[in-house]
Amino acid sequence: MFFHVKELQYRAKPDKPDPIYAKKLQEVLGGQFGEISVMMQYLFQGWNCRAEKKYRDMLLDIGTEEIAHVEMLATMIAQLLDKAPVEEQEQAAKDPIIASVMGGMNPQHAIVNGLGASPNDSAGYPWNARYTIASGNLLADFRANLNAESQGRLQVVRLYEMTDDKGVRDMLSFLIARDTMHQNQWLAAIAELEEKEGKVVPSTFNRQYEKSDVAYKFISCSEGTESQAGRWAKGPSIDGMGQFEYVENPVGTGQAPELEQAPGYIHGTPKNM
Amino acid sequence: MFFHVKELQYRAKPDKPDPIYAKKLQEVLGGQFGEISVMMQYLFQGWNCRAEKKYRDMLLDIGTEEIAHVEMLATMIAQLLDKAPVEEQEQAAKDPIIASVMGGMNPQHAIVNGLGASPNDSAGYPWNARYTIASGNLLADFRANLNAESQGRLQVVRLYEMTDDKGVRDMLSFLIARDTMHQNQWLAAIAELEEKEGKVVPSTFNRQYEKSDVAYKFISCSEGTESQAGRWAKGPSIDGMGQFEYVENPVGTGQAPELEQAPGYIHGTPKNM
Amino acid sequence: MFFHVKELQYRAKPDKPDPIYAKKLQEVLGGQFGEISVMMQYLFQGWNCRAEKKYRDMLLDIGTEEIAHVEMLATMIAQLLDKAPVEEQEQAAKDPIIASVMGGMNPQHAIVNGLGASPNDSAGYPWNARYTIASGNLLADFRANLNAESQGRLQVVRLYEMTDDKGVRDMLSFLIARDTMHQNQWLAAIAELEEKEGKVVPSTFNRQYEKSDVAYKFISCSEGTESQAGRWAKGPSIDGMGQFEYVENPVGTGQAPELEQAPGYIHGTPKNM
Amino acid sequence: MFFHVKELQYRAKPDKPDPIYAKKLQEVLGGQFGEISVMMQYLFQGWNCRAEKKYRDMLLDIGTEEIAHVEMLATMIAQLLDKAPVEEQEQAAKDPIIASVMGGMNPQHAIVNGLGASPNDSAGYPWNARYTIASGNLLADFRANLNAESQGRLQVVRLYEMTDDKGVRDMLSFLIARDTMHQNQWLAAIAELEEKEGKVVPSTFNRQYEKSDVAYKFISCSEGTESQAGRWAKGPSIDGMGQFEYVENPVGTGQAPELEQAPGYIHGTPKNM
Amino acid sequence: MFFHVKELQYRAKPDKPDPIYAKKLQEVLGGQFGEISVMMQYLFQGWNCRAEKKYRDMLLDIGTEEIAHVEMLATMIAQLLDKAPVEEQEQAAKDPIIASVMGGMNPQHAIVNGLGASPNDSAGYPWNARYTIASGNLLADFRANLNAESQGRLQVVRLYEMTDDKGVRDMLSFLIARDTMHQNQWLAAIAELEEKEGKVVPSTFNRQYEKSDVAYKFISCSEGTESQAGRWAKGPSIDGMGQFEYVENPVGTGQAPELEQAPGYIHGTPKNM
Amino acid sequence: MFFHVKELQYRAKPDKPDPIYAKKLQEVLGGQFGEISVMMQYLFQGWNCRAEKKYRDMLLDIGTEEIAHVEMLATMIAQLLDKAPVEEQEQAAKDPIIASVMGGMNPQHAIVNGLGASPNDSAGYPWNARYTIASGNLLADFRANLNAESQGRLQVVRLYEMTDDKGVRDMLSFLIARDTMHQNQWLAAIAELEEKEGKVVPSTFNRQYEKSDVAYKFISCSEGTESQAGRWAKGPSIDGMGQFEYVENPVGTGQAPELEQAPGYIHGTPKNM
Repeated sequence: MFFHVKELQYRAKPDKPDPIYAKKLQEVLGGQFGEISVMMQYLFQGWNCRAEKKYRDMLLDIGTEEIAHVEMLATMIAQLLDKAPVEEQEQAAKDPIIASVMGGMNPQHAIVNGLGASPNDSAGYPWNARYTIASGNLLADFRANLNAESQGRLQVVRLYEMTDDKGVRDMLSFLIARDTMHQNQWLAAIAELEEKEGKVVPSTFNRQYEKSDVAYKFISCSEGTESQAGRWAKGPSIDGMGQFEYVENPVGTGQAPELEQAPGYIHGTPKNM
Repeated sequence: MFFHVKELQYRAKPDKPDPIYAKKLQEVLGGQFGEISVMMQYLFQGWNCRAEKKYRDMLLDIGTEEIAHVEMLATMIAQLLDKAPVEEQEQAAKDPIIASVMGGMNPQHAIVNGLGASPNDSAGYPWNARYTIASGNLLADFRANLNAESQGRLQVVRLYEMTDDKGVRDMLSFLIARDTMHQNQWLAAIAELEEKEGKVVPSTFNRQYEKSDVAYKFISCSEGTESQAGRWAKGPSIDGMGQFEYVENPVGTGQAPELEQAPGYIHGTPKNM
Repeated sequence: MFFHVKELQYRAKPDKPDPIYAKKLQEVLGGQFGEISVMMQYLFQGWNCRAEKKYRDMLLDIGTEEIAHVEMLATMIAQLLDKAPVEEQEQAAKDPIIASVMGGMNPQHAIVNGLGASPNDSAGYPWNARYTIASGNLLADFRANLNAESQGRLQVVRLYEMTDDKGVRDMLSFLIARDTMHQNQWLAAIAELEEKEGKVVPSTFNRQYEKSDVAYKFISCSEGTESQAGRWAKGPSIDGMGQFEYVENPVGTGQAPELEQAPGYIHGTPKNM
Repeated sequence: MFFHVKELQYRAKPDKPDPIYAKKLQEVLGGQFGEISVMMQYLFQGWNCRAEKKYRDMLLDIGTEEIAHVEMLATMIAQLLDKAPVEEQEQAAKDPIIASVMGGMNPQHAIVNGLGASPNDSAGYPWNARYTIASGNLLADFRANLNAESQGRLQVVRLYEMTDDKGVRDMLSFLIARDTMHQNQWLAAIAELEEKEGKVVPSTFNRQYEKSDVAYKFISCSEGTESQAGRWAKGPSIDGMGQFEYVENPVGTGQAPELEQAPGYIHGTPKNM
Repeated sequence: MFFHVKELQYRAKPDKPDPIYAKKLQEVLGGQFGEISVMMQYLFQGWNCRAEKKYRDMLLDIGTEEIAHVEMLATMIAQLLDKAPVEEQEQAAKDPIIASVMGGMNPQHAIVNGLGASPNDSAGYPWNARYTIASGNLLADFRANLNAESQGRLQVVRLYEMTDDKGVRDMLSFLIARDTMHQNQWLAAIAELEEKEGKVVPSTFNRQYEKSDVAYKFISCSEGTESQAGRWAKGPSIDGMGQFEYVENPVGTGQAPELEQAPGYIHGTPKNM
Repeated sequence: MFFHVKELQYRAKPDKPDPIYAKKLQEVLGGQFGEISVMMQYLFQGWNCRAEKKYRDMLLDIGTEEIAHVEMLATMIAQLLDKAPVEEQEQAAKDPIIASVMGGMNPQHAIVNGLGASPNDSAGYPWNARYTIASGNLLADFRANLNAESQGRLQVVRLYEMTDDKGVRDMLSFLIARDTMHQNQWLAAIAELEEKEGKVVPSTFNRQYEKSDVAYKFISCSEGTESQAGRWAKGPSIDGMGQFEYVENPVGTGQAPELEQAPGYIHGTPKNM
């Protein structure tokens, strides 16, 4: 069960409205790597968690914190939209700066949301649940989480560069710091699990059932061998169970496929046509 | 530019048709972590790559290999659908096993695709481009790639458990091995970049602009302290730049938000109502 | 079966083209509460109607009228796009007002639709059928309809404020009046049904099977008691069958969940890890 | 800011697993009128609220309660999926009941979520943010909320009829009771606002700018006059400002549209072709 | 403006309910090539039509007919769902045929639509407006229409094969005949336009601005020359303006791309890393 | 299996960056008729092909070429985004031309993709697999392909008109020429198949099972007879098997539908209410 307190986790107050920036800031609210995504991802991972208790507790801790981040961003966006000049006024429309504001903001912020935040990204595309990753395998999922916090911090940093509003930057510097923590957190949790399970997910699949002869080959399907210069092309594999090998001129070993004709009730093109 | 050869990278031939399994196998073709996703992700990361040449070359190598995996899966699915009993036949419909096949397969495989594969997942939901991650920051993206190969291998392993068709298992054991390699590959590439840049993405943001006092705190927003038992709650942070600290009873430090009334032309509910 | 006459239900002619406004006006054509939504919603409610004949007839009356509204808006948008300056002309591009038009309009209006209307909303997001509500329970659905006409009239009014084109305003004033009627219509239909069935949907569920002790409690899950000031927190319930009660400090009465380990073939993280 | 306690708001424990029912129950978790929808809707309405404080507080109270409902449903679904027979076992597959379970459950529950709940509906379609209604006009939005609780209670009741598992029914009877309360709550809040503002949303639009002659006419666009039998076709309008009037044979009063030719750079079909 | 009459264009009455078939039949109602698609496509092409009057009139004729087809299918599906056995009854659930019906039907037909049709396809995916093609160039659009009627007739024929219900087949035989007409109709309209404009769309682009040396070459990007056997590889081109030529071993003539480093405020991976 | 060479099929280099044009150009990369669509469509048609070998080979030839077009467009877009002025600089933001660039470009190009291309259309909507048509009936599918190349060439031509950048126009003139070839190619392949199968798809359905009396009638569902002027309304049908006939005043011949009441467990509105 959940409870709410009125204070935001950290202050969220812009120096002045900026409806075009409000549109951009939606990315880290309702985009693929926005706060709604991590909120939903950590909560569902927690609720579905069948492992040791510390994982469930930790996931619900951080998932609950992310609801507070969603709240901060929604509050910030509503204030960035304060008094957005969407009303037609002949004079205003002739001022090119105001004209470009009126053309550049997301019209749904006014028409649909009445100057409020919405759960969409910066292109106006709605958040959707296919962004939520919860597989039941924690090592896999913590890698998803590390990725989410990496993409997320990158996006917030880019948004930091796109404004000079002190209030906005103040709030973003808080979110950036939390993303620093969360990257560290997932790195720590991953290290813990990798030590027990090994590097390859899932660790429980019997390795004798995989085609071991291709399990450590780098297959160069493109012309040129620049890719040979990387760590991934030589030396012991990271899981410690093989040697990287570079295959410069791979060939297909499978069949040249030939499909059977479909039955008549499918009405496909017959084979002999 | 690209070229095609007729042979599949590895053989893809089921022992017998199985239209319900065909529906399930769609997950690793057109699902969030299916082969279309990694194909598109690696190709776009390659085409957008502004870094050293070995990265672009490597990304296009592996992206091109993934097209071959899409091809193998599409070929396999088409054969699993061979002669699917979708035609109404009074006798057949009374056999409960056939009835459950006719009710359990994806009807679009017959109606829309004429017994062919489609770029959808196992719930019939179409692949979409929001699955493609390409940020221009390679460390962030390689973490996305490691996640994709972890979720992907996990899903293929689960599908391996759901069939006893020798031909299908043979092909899956190849894909599982390639996912082993690809997890190793991204681990290697990540290690290389982390050594140069450090652990926190993006490394180029000036750390003095982040709220450093919350950059290493684990904030427990849920009752109970089981989460204190993890590596993420104590000791030096993984990036080597701080100490993890556990905050058991956090408080909000921001304002209790109060928004201004919207202008009249928005026709929202007025403040004094 | 349906028939078409050439005259629009009401005139739809702007004084002058305005491609940025055309983009905004798409909201009430192809948005969640646009005319396509109510057209589809009323038609499907009518076609699926298993109740008294007057309901089916009424639903098809108004559903058919809404096709005419879609037609009016599509016609208006096509004219707002007349001669939109999308061709590159060096001089024009240097005029900041024209530049902002070229940057602010929806590029698909030119590239995809050749200066025609499209069934999308003002953010360019396509109309989709999840907007269509038809449950088979008319009281539930008429509440959906009242909501649609409320959101719809609000959006049209906002759009009215965003233009001073007399021709556009003339058409919008017609749509606003029809929305006034339609709000009244659904209020009337709801009153009729509530009188027979009572206020709670569905009325046919046996109330003894619900946990009656929580059926009239306002549960305050957030700090502070401002919410106690509303009508919803005290006095007789609106359905006349209980008394509102305010629960200031609710507690969870369910279990602290603990899930079983998944079977081995799922390859999740084991419980003891 | 938010906090979590370990206990569920109400117990959520099925008597036995039932993976096909788990798929169905997803509707009220991740469907259009599932708990995620009302959670997001009430929270965003609260965060965007520019009106009197009691509204914001009330919205955040109920929005926070809904997170607990999401939690209960996710927990229930995970348990309904316990030990789902997805592994291939020759004997099992020949048992028609097991075969129909294996064909009838959502394959993503096993392949993607490892026997956990997902934020999707019963057809496997992901929840998306276009379900979230928050317009800034509370009377409009409370009508959306009343609709959501009506559709929601209807769906939970239908799901109640589809199982005889006592544990599931126990939890559903709690949710049904809460929906009873929430319908009453929105009815109370609506009554309060309608008393101040009147029945027509938005109340602030100057009625002299609407085409008043069509503001109370029922326009019969379909053959037959059964629709004349309803309250909506005669008597005083519900807003008390007009008289309903039935128009049996309406005619279009607008132009027969004729569009201008597109400019050459659009490459449309010319007018004289 | 539009009008409705009560009679269906053709009778739509199944001999008996069949909820699994109802799910399948949704494909030609709400799928990519279902009746909603052609209804919307022809109406929008008509409303956006800037060409000669006969085209607009013809498009609105056929678009209006398609609304009647949507109506017939919705009516049929509602009847196929009559009395669907969704209620839990211990005895029934043990009958494998009934079990497979309960597992194989689309659960939303009961939970969401109360045994009514919905605007979704046979996988439960909602119709969306990206299916609607209206480009302003009639030759292009008539080719889209010919395709829609070809895919559509193919799907209806496949559905005809999947049932032996006489009532359903009777209605489908009507729709199949109309699709025969509509294929003929678009073929006729295309022939008319191709005679005036030529075969290549758009005809108005100045051919001297295209790279004429590749305008008639078949470029074989895959191994083997089976593709040389087709009409597309030799002889005069269909537009009569060139000769087909087969290029067996094509080479890339563009640059090997090398992108510039991104500016610092983008925080991408630097070039020298 | 596939291979990549470093050279682009044709050069892709703009004279100068233009981030607003980059947004527009996305349409032919990731839009409904962009290069990703034809790439996926031809590859899936090829992989699913159960007909003569020359078709599979031809489809994989052209599908493989289309990957190269995706590559060219992605490369071009990344360069059009070079050094896009997204960083906040007080001076710049006051220049109305720069302000309109900053407001008019797609913000995701900077925030999400770090100045790289993405698989989205010009409205920022993600490419999705419902665009991919592969039915197993080649005549149907080749008509889909002809349509795709017609819409595609039309869109590229429109984009050609929207820029005067010589480098961009050079690349587009190559794509336009290839679309000329591809329209010719599909016209040739269609002619070949129509000669063998006839004009109506699918040719294999027994014509005696269709309602032959409506197979050649043009049914005028809209007022006025302008539509009678077209070739589709008189003369022999294009398939040579009937005569077009114009029905000026059609009537519905089906029933006026009346649905049965739903069972009690559905909780719909009862019939007598």
